[in-house]
Amino acid sequence: MSAISALALPGIPEIRPGDDLAAIIASAAEPHGAGDEDVLVIAHKVVSKSEGRLRRLAEVTPGRRAATLAAEHGKDPRHIQVVLDESRHVLRAAHGVLICETHHGFVCANAGVDASNVPGEDTVVMLPRDPDASARALRAALRERLGAQPAVIITDSFGRAWRHGQCDVAIGAAGIAPLQDWRGLRDSQGRELTATWIAVADELAAAADLARSKDAAEPVVLVRGAGRHVIGDDGPGAAALLRPETQDLFR
Amino acid sequence: MSAISALALPGIPEIRPGDDLAAIIASAAEPHGAGDEDVLVIAHKVVSKSEGRLRRLAEVTPGRRAATLAAEHGKDPRHIQVVLDESRHVLRAAHGVLICETHHGFVCANAGVDASNVPGEDTVVMLPRDPDASARALRAALRERLGAQPAVIITDSFGRAWRHGQCDVAIGAAGIAPLQDWRGLRDSQGRELTATWIAVADELAAAADLARSKDAAEPVVLVRGAGRHVIGDDGPGAAALLRPETQDLFR
Repeated sequence: MSAISALALPGIPEIRPGDDLAAIIASAAEPHGAGDEDVLVIAHKVVSKSEGRLRRLAEVTPGRRAATLAAEHGKDPRHIQVVLDESRHVLRAAHGVLICETHHGFVCANAGVDASNVPGEDTVVMLPRDPDASARALRAALRERLGAQPAVIITDSFGRAWRHGQCDVAIGAAGIAPLQDWRGLRDSQGRELTATWIAVADELAAAADLARSKDAAEPVVLVRGAGRHVIGDDGPGAAALLRPETQDLFR
Repeated sequence: MSAISALALPGIPEIRPGDDLAAIIASAAEPHGAGDEDVLVIAHKVVSKSEGRLRRLAEVTPGRRAATLAAEHGKDPRHIQVVLDESRHVLRAAHGVLICETHHGFVCANAGVDASNVPGEDTVVMLPRDPDASARALRAALRERLGAQPAVIITDSFGRAWRHGQCDVAIGAAGIAPLQDWRGLRDSQGRELTATWIAVADELAAAADLARSKDAAEPVVLVRGAGRHVIGDDGPGAAALLRPETQDLFR
């Protein structure tokens, strides 16, 4: 019999650039005894804010392409300029949304640039510059403070092709095997599992999102019972979840 | 402070066509006191098997298109014929996989036709003919037996564009609001949430998948703590998660 649980940690304040996020998360996690088999799932916005990954639109000068796209889609050209700055490619532009490939390789709406949950009317938040590095640094700093090293997953909410709505996915990870590979193994009938390659880090991100309320300022969720996916070293990170362009049928 | 938990129910035997699946699930769920606020997440294979949604390849005669595709992709033409029979369109064919739109409107590999976890070397299992109807029927039958009416979600593991690996998603649902719409509401800063529309049923499917082991024959998972998404009537089902072709940028 196996079980998992996800608990949104109370007591995380509004995060500002330069805040010691690891210390804040450690304080919130300590009463719950976060241990080596646990996973801390962290909404990227608090990571981005602590790293100063914010831009004030008043300081952005939109270029010609941003102005054109903004006019076509009824958007603020300065916001579009930030999206373009964060993008390697724009895959599609329609319905007022740009579907972008970020410099990291994530395919998502508006390159992850977002204005919600950001204080100040004209400030937008971007994804961390290197979310896997952010996850590794947080894990190391949490280990110092907790005397244990839970795995760390950093998440964002991504829309999907073909399906409505968003699911949280992993954009950074440390200490978790992001994919569980059953290919070549046997199912309960002894038959080979040919196409079973589970995006564990994304399922953890989704499970954690269910535990929190979007309006309740609960960016950190402690997940228990997924210890079989936690690894001692930091592992390949969420970058391992990116399908290379050459293997992708939908770019 | 909010929390969810997911428990894989032990004691579900191999399911055969005609088995009373609701009675079997009720027996497994009853010791855990499944109630009105709970969600039972069920891997579709047991639903498909109980409904007889199986085909013996010995009884399939491949047509010309199946023969051509099978030769190009190194597959069994009879298996490909079943995939074509289950498909409305084939969107892509590459890397030995057909990405299909099923008659229900799901976009997934091989139209959900699968040979793993099926007894008998030459038998394949298909998706339920109407997974939302299957979910509604199971919920009604569970209510009779349990004296409570947990929500029901039927799942499959789908690959994704742009990302490696599979996540479980909802293909049928009853008693759950499949999407939670925060659009137009306010975040913790009082700022409007512009693009927050959460695929709750898919996140529940993903959370449940984490609780089970693919080789342990644990098709049914009891999820607690998601009661705010459970509804008294059956609701719109997983069909509400399908993005219409006209709104989709990647078909």
